[in-house]
Amino acid sequence: MSRITVRAFSVSVDGFGAGPGQNRENPLGVGGMALHEWMFSTRTVRRMMGQEGGTTGIDDGFAVRGFENVGAWVIGRNMFGPVRGPWPDESWRGWWGENPPFQVPVFVLTHHARRAIEMEGGTTFYFVTEGIEAAASRAREAAQGKEVRLGGGVATIRQFLQARMIEEMHVAVSPVVMGSGEALYAGLNLAGLGYRCREQVAGEKAVHVLFGREG
Amino acid sequence: MSRITVRAFSVSVDGFGAGPGQNRENPLGVGGMALHEWMFSTRTVRRMMGQEGGTTGIDDGFAVRGFENVGAWVIGRNMFGPVRGPWPDESWRGWWGENPPFQVPVFVLTHHARRAIEMEGGTTFYFVTEGIEAAASRAREAAQGKEVRLGGGVATIRQFLQARMIEEMHVAVSPVVMGSGEALYAGLNLAGLGYRCREQVAGEKAVHVLFGREG
Repeated sequence: MSRITVRAFSVSVDGFGAGPGQNRENPLGVGGMALHEWMFSTRTVRRMMGQEGGTTGIDDGFAVRGFENVGAWVIGRNMFGPVRGPWPDESWRGWWGENPPFQVPVFVLTHHARRAIEMEGGTTFYFVTEGIEAAASRAREAAQGKEVRLGGGVATIRQFLQARMIEEMHVAVSPVVMGSGEALYAGLNLAGLGYRCREQVAGEKAVHVLFGREG
Repeated sequence: MSRITVRAFSVSVDGFGAGPGQNRENPLGVGGMALHEWMFSTRTVRRMMGQEGGTTGIDDGFAVRGFENVGAWVIGRNMFGPVRGPWPDESWRGWWGENPPFQVPVFVLTHHARRAIEMEGGTTFYFVTEGIEAAASRAREAAQGKEVRLGGGVATIRQFLQARMIEEMHVAVSPVVMGSGEALYAGLNLAGLGYRCREQVAGEKAVHVLFGREG
């Protein structure tokens, strides 16, 4: 069965996965972009954005692994877009333009039904209103044995952690103090949920922490 | 004026500075000792404990800096010992034996007055009942221009952070998931309090994060 993993999820040194005040102008919250600087410095992500150059070291290795062997994604609605409540129309099609980087089926958690959107390059957005179990089940079916990558945001990852559904989670810690926003660990007993730290290694611009679930 | 700093304060990857269930058998809480493994592996700390060998790299460098130029310490009562409430007698003299590693005056925050205790090797424990401002003031006077090192635990450091009294804080992140215990960052807006991340560097057994206060 496909494993559900989190890859390359960026947090601040004080544990925030997004800044405060998330909106259309600040999809990652105010100051949230700084969390991802390490990723946008890698050759892998620069290539995906049509840019040259980029780092090829440890950070890049983690970026590469984030896209390897991924058969489907699950993301929260806030990661899909800033629209809240019922969809006013079908005009919002994600942050990523007509050819999103996923290139596999993406299951978007939402309380509001919507028709699937087929994009260029292999990405199709499916909207799942029946909760995380249903989204996981549909994503596993679509992934056909490859990994299901859980993309975020923080609230979505916390739901999956509490349900013990994530097998492995790679968190990249950026040298930034956020102060407020969405806290990844607050109030979660990761040890009690069966998670251990498998690895903590420094890259060029972030420290990479690998959590695994045991038992 | 003497700066107040935190040095070599160990936390888990999920941000806990001590484990749950702190008592006489588990001064750092259950599982809390694992947070400090990096420190007990360094040559500096092994020498202080009369042992040979130990690492001499980045971790050791941070251990060295933790004792350099320190003129006085401030510590919370829980760091001094497991006794709670009024002192039943004067038998508890700290966790460290008759020759504690401080070797300078140590100001212990407590609600319960007690006579100072002069130990071997230059350490004297003074008990301060008038709060953190008074402790800082007395420690600064004793430090005579050297640093005042704030030793912990978590509750004490959080009080000083909220009062914006810490100039620099070195946190060592150990590759351990704690899950519960005393959370260092939870509910604190470090950015709002003026703290920035100056450095994040990997040692042999811990990642070292340096926070500085600006403005």
